[in-house]
Amino acid sequence: MDKVAMTEAIIVAKKTKNLSWEQIGEAIGMSPVWTTSACLGMNSMPEDTATALCRFMELPAEVSQALQEYPTKVWDQAVPTDPLIYRLYEIVGVYGPTLKEVIQEKFGDGIMSAIDFNMSVEHKADPKGDRVVVTMDGKFLPYKAW
Amino acid sequence: MDKVAMTEAIIVAKKTKNLSWEQIGEAIGMSPVWTTSACLGMNSMPEDTATALCRFMELPAEVSQALQEYPTKVWDQAVPTDPLIYRLYEIVGVYGPTLKEVIQEKFGDGIMSAIDFNMSVEHKADPKGDRVVVTMDGKFLPYKAW
Amino acid sequence: MDKVAMTEAIIVAKKTKNLSWEQIGEAIGMSPVWTTSACLGMNSMPEDTATALCRFMELPAEVSQALQEYPTKVWDQAVPTDPLIYRLYEIVGVYGPTLKEVIQEKFGDGIMSAIDFNMSVEHKADPKGDRVVVTMDGKFLPYKAW
Amino acid sequence: MDKVAMTEAIIVAKKTKNLSWEQIGEAIGMSPVWTTSACLGMNSMPEDTATALCRFMELPAEVSQALQEYPTKVWDQAVPTDPLIYRLYEIVGVYGPTLKEVIQEKFGDGIMSAIDFNMSVEHKADPKGDRVVVTMDGKFLPYKAW
Amino acid sequence: MDKVAMTEAIIVAKKTKNLSWEQIGEAIGMSPVWTTSACLGMNSMPEDTATALCRFMELPAEVSQALQEYPTKVWDQAVPTDPLIYRLYEIVGVYGPTLKEVIQEKFGDGIMSAIDFNMSVEHKADPKGDRVVVTMDGKFLPYKAW
Amino acid sequence: MDKVAMTEAIIVAKKTKNLSWEQIGEAIGMSPVWTTSACLGMNSMPEDTATALCRFMELPAEVSQALQEYPTKVWDQAVPTDPLIYRLYEIVGVYGPTLKEVIQEKFGDGIMSAIDFNMSVEHKADPKGDRVVVTMDGKFLPYKAW
Amino acid sequence: MDKVAMTEAIIVAKKTKNLSWEQIGEAIGMSPVWTTSACLGMNSMPEDTATALCRFMELPAEVSQALQEYPTKVWDQAVPTDPLIYRLYEIVGVYGPTLKEVIQEKFGDGIMSAIDFNMSVEHKADPKGDRVVVTMDGKFLPYKAW
Amino acid sequence: MDKVAMTEAIIVAKKTKNLSWEQIGEAIGMSPVWTTSACLGMNSMPEDTATALCRFMELPAEVSQALQEYPTKVWDQAVPTDPLIYRLYEIVGVYGPTLKEVIQEKFGDGIMSAIDFNMSVEHKADPKGDRVVVTMDGKFLPYKAW
Amino acid sequence: MDKVAMTEAIIVAKKTKNLSWEQIGEAIGMSPVWTTSACLGMNSMPEDTATALCRFMELPAEVSQALQEYPTKVWDQAVPTDPLIYRLYEIVGVYGPTLKEVIQEKFGDGIMSAIDFNMSVEHKADPKGDRVVVTMDGKFLPYKAW
Amino acid sequence: MDKVAMTEAIIVAKKTKNLSWEQIGEAIGMSPVWTTSACLGMNSMPEDTATALCRFMELPAEVSQALQEYPTKVWDQAVPTDPLIYRLYEIVGVYGPTLKEVIQEKFGDGIMSAIDFNMSVEHKADPKGDRVVVTMDGKFLPYKAW
Repeated sequence: MDKVAMTEAIIVAKKTKNLSWEQIGEAIGMSPVWTTSACLGMNSMPEDTATALCRFMELPAEVSQALQEYPTKVWDQAVPTDPLIYRLYEIVGVYGPTLKEVIQEKFGDGIMSAIDFNMSVEHKADPKGDRVVVTMDGKFLPYKAW
Repeated sequence: MDKVAMTEAIIVAKKTKNLSWEQIGEAIGMSPVWTTSACLGMNSMPEDTATALCRFMELPAEVSQALQEYPTKVWDQAVPTDPLIYRLYEIVGVYGPTLKEVIQEKFGDGIMSAIDFNMSVEHKADPKGDRVVVTMDGKFLPYKAW
Repeated sequence: MDKVAMTEAIIVAKKTKNLSWEQIGEAIGMSPVWTTSACLGMNSMPEDTATALCRFMELPAEVSQALQEYPTKVWDQAVPTDPLIYRLYEIVGVYGPTLKEVIQEKFGDGIMSAIDFNMSVEHKADPKGDRVVVTMDGKFLPYKAW
Repeated sequence: MDKVAMTEAIIVAKKTKNLSWEQIGEAIGMSPVWTTSACLGMNSMPEDTATALCRFMELPAEVSQALQEYPTKVWDQAVPTDPLIYRLYEIVGVYGPTLKEVIQEKFGDGIMSAIDFNMSVEHKADPKGDRVVVTMDGKFLPYKAW
Repeated sequence: MDKVAMTEAIIVAKKTKNLSWEQIGEAIGMSPVWTTSACLGMNSMPEDTATALCRFMELPAEVSQALQEYPTKVWDQAVPTDPLIYRLYEIVGVYGPTLKEVIQEKFGDGIMSAIDFNMSVEHKADPKGDRVVVTMDGKFLPYKAW
Repeated sequence: MDKVAMTEAIIVAKKTKNLSWEQIGEAIGMSPVWTTSACLGMNSMPEDTATALCRFMELPAEVSQALQEYPTKVWDQAVPTDPLIYRLYEIVGVYGPTLKEVIQEKFGDGIMSAIDFNMSVEHKADPKGDRVVVTMDGKFLPYKAW
Repeated sequence: MDKVAMTEAIIVAKKTKNLSWEQIGEAIGMSPVWTTSACLGMNSMPEDTATALCRFMELPAEVSQALQEYPTKVWDQAVPTDPLIYRLYEIVGVYGPTLKEVIQEKFGDGIMSAIDFNMSVEHKADPKGDRVVVTMDGKFLPYKAW
Repeated sequence: MDKVAMTEAIIVAKKTKNLSWEQIGEAIGMSPVWTTSACLGMNSMPEDTATALCRFMELPAEVSQALQEYPTKVWDQAVPTDPLIYRLYEIVGVYGPTLKEVIQEKFGDGIMSAIDFNMSVEHKADPKGDRVVVTMDGKFLPYKAW
Repeated sequence: MDKVAMTEAIIVAKKTKNLSWEQIGEAIGMSPVWTTSACLGMNSMPEDTATALCRFMELPAEVSQALQEYPTKVWDQAVPTDPLIYRLYEIVGVYGPTLKEVIQEKFGDGIMSAIDFNMSVEHKADPKGDRVVVTMDGKFLPYKAW
Repeated sequence: MDKVAMTEAIIVAKKTKNLSWEQIGEAIGMSPVWTTSACLGMNSMPEDTATALCRFMELPAEVSQALQEYPTKVWDQAVPTDPLIYRLYEIVGVYGPTLKEVIQEKFGDGIMSAIDFNMSVEHKADPKGDRVVVTMDGKFLPYKAW
């Protein structure tokens, strides 16, 4: 079973059991963002987490096996078209050099890791319209001289 | 004076006076991220803020004028090459569909605005290596039927 | 049933019953443009509208289910080739900076939303050749400083 | 004087005299959208209109000459990055096939001309947030068999 | 039956009956170029012409139905690789600005329509090597001011 | 003097003397299309033709020299944006495979040369709107087996 | 049978019978390069040659039919990745302008035909490492003035 | 002096002295193709060859210096547009897989080097039209297992 | 059996038998990197090595046959997206010109071969975090003059 | 002084003083690869190293200042054309998935850092032709679950 079939199996079970990513994450003791990314095939799960997920969602062992595989992370669209994802891309385009200035002012020459990294999404109520709050938290990696 | 010359003038003054974006933002009562983006030519400043910045940095009136212009936001690299900015792009590629799932689960069909939007950067000390925390906060815009 | 199969089922029923998008929109109390876009898989329908459409067109419940899914909006051609669609692209290329000037002169720095948005198409009779009138109506979103 | 220098001269005069595109269009008896597009170098002006514009804005004869030249319409970004213009591009991507369905249902096989074409922008007040209304009006051109 | 299956059916019948595009066009009273383009799925046929073609070629009613559908005109290669088609592309690249100069000198600011358009191919005998003569005939569309 | 400077010099002289491409071609005994293409730097002129052109237009010897240079034919836009040139590109996209079918039916496997090639533009009066007639005439080159 | 299936059938027969391209070319009285290109679907064979090949390789009549079809020459990779083919591409990049200089010095303004063209490959023994010798032989086509 | 200025200086001297690449190559005892490529900045010359060239062409020492620099080989057009160079590119597209088959049949798995490589151009008289003969001669490099 | 099916068969056997690339390489007396590349279809195996691998992994003769085929090396992503592979691409972008300077300083004008080439990967323990050591070893190929 | 001017100043001084990158690196106590990359503008130098370099090479203080700036790492060619750099790119294309397999087998799911990274180049004498040995040494970064 490859990652594509695995994702399909999980999505079907999720709809049938009427579960949210929030609930699935909670059931396996992990955050909803990371849980979703692993179920969409963009992260690998440790064995016990994969087992827990399959037990909770009543999915067969091949799904657990597929969840544990190390993924090859591929995306087709250099510039994404879906409006929700494009807005994130646009933020990188508009604010990328700004973030470089501000991060390197605080930390020196280096980058924010996208590997030693986590992320969360919050719902913030607001009378003028509710707001999405995305928090990215990555280790600072300084360039080294040699 | 166009935005490119404006940015150069601000960068020179910033170095000469040994100022940080943090200090400049504080002096005009705005966040460092937004202040930087306006100085890099990616946002327009209201007149009083532009005036305050030029007074604080001892910059001429044309700089203030240029800061108030509405920018045309252009970036050349569909896929950015600078490692710090590329990591942000990679996060959009790896986690874009995940964020779509998680945000739309919480909010319904719609997007996070990149216009009615703000962002901050924090330094989080960590014995295993300090961490960069980027927080994005955008209004949720639901698709409307008609 | 995914959105592609859904669209095919709707198109077949539309031909068999000899219906127009105009009639389908009217039957569910929505505009023809929005109705078409949802049937082509580019918008999600609220449950009652989807139910009404399937009842009117005698389509099974899976079609209704698929109409309610939140779509991932993807298009393959960065520059469209079909002449009708290319002309719209050309209008964006030729008149994009003009619209930016005129809209921002009227509204200040910001954009026209493509989310809080609706659109209609009218047929205008003209002795020199009938005319297509496309009207776009989107909320103005001002950039915010922070 | 080429079109680029012409546009710069007009923009400088427009700022100096504190004019809007609305006022310039009115002074020469043309719509603000078309007037702007000609001033940005994307349409050619008939001689009398160009003369009137230069008289009104106190610009020299070379500007009038340049306004009358037939432009070569070039844009660099196949996918525009400025958010206001990108939203228009997104509308073409999301709604292009929908417009094709709806227009060809009303008119038969053919296209909306982008040459025998005009466009306007309106400001619509709305308590929930003002709205931009863009109206495109193009001649329908049927495909011919031969 | 979609346009791809339609084209395949026509090509098979054409080979079986040993017909040329010339003969097929003649049989339905249309030019060979337009007939070919409709059979390749790049133009729609009026009902009577489609019926005549299917009667002549002994093809079933679904082919006629498919010939009448309004096509979505798509090509994959922005730069075509087949040498015969590339040479046409090269002519546009080498002579495009020349044609713009010469056409606009004769007609004013505007374009040659590719919609209100027809084309023919002739064989011209020549002792130094026979020649292909392609004639394009399109309505001139002047830009309009508004 | 390179080809770019040469073209500028010719354009200036053409405007000053109020000449058309038609007249220039006639003066040197060549067609207007070929004459224009050589003046735009896309073909090289034999010495006597270049001399005749410079005598007629009162241009210096360097222009003649530059007209005789063998050009490197370069265009920047794989997909042209100017509407007049795009329509030609669209014709290649829509009718390219059709022309391949029709030409190879008449001539066998091979191509129409774009080198041993000429082209003309005619104005055809028409009460429903004048028409542009472009005629391409290229030697047929058969593929050879070896 | 299309060209892809034809190539597969030929490759299978070639392996089963343990034949080389050299032997196949010899059997049909043609060069190995041209024979290979026709078998890979990039050239069409005259009827008698196709018949001879199928008789020699014991292939059915549909293969012969497919070999005679005029191919549409398509390649997917604008920049080829296979190292052997990339080196040829690199030679065009590095030496293309050099070949233009040297050929046009010898022949005047024009090109080497890729249609009236043949090519061979030789093995040249060399104590420092054997060498590949590729010889291209194409008709010179002069640009013509008109 | 960089390679661009060097090439310009050589081209000017070549025209002034009315020299051919053939003559320049002969004067320095090298082939015309390699000599041209070094003068166009695509190969580096050993010191004595560079000195000989500058003495022969009466060029200053900086040109010799620049000829000896190791070039960074850059080309802008992934797909070249000049017809002479495009035909070479087309040959790689059409015959690349064929050359791979034929070379690897003769030599085993490996490539023809584009580094340990030389090339020549011959003029072959032919009553049906003279022919260009390009010969490439590169060392075969076998893949090694380890 | 093509290379894709071959890779799948090997991967299945590798999992079933719980083997590492290290062990497979050792069993056939080759390095793990080269063994992996041949199993992924990017190098061809000599007959005896392929036989040894299939005997060791209990795979049928077709797998051995497929391992011996000369591969066409194709990759789809000009810029790879998987983070592990992208980092290698980034190293080429950031350090490519540096490696050119340093290698050509040590060796003269030429390149490091990617054909007469081998590579290894080592695990280096480090208290601050283990390190990956990749060693590339390629023959230097000097450019030759002719 | 920006990084481009800085690099030019260093290159001029390097030639004038006839220094190698090896010698410059030794003089400042750093490796030649890192020293070169900083001088080419792809890494920032700590203040004391920059001072040492400028003292050794007799360069002014602005060069030292520019060496200390944090660079924005930009490269223009997604696929590099220079043969030395292309071979490195080819290695990533051919062996990228292999390295992923081998590294992740040794280390688990994660990547080799290109930031906490160093690299060296060695000259290895070999009677069959000297060899280039490139060693990359990067910290392994494991993906973290959260």
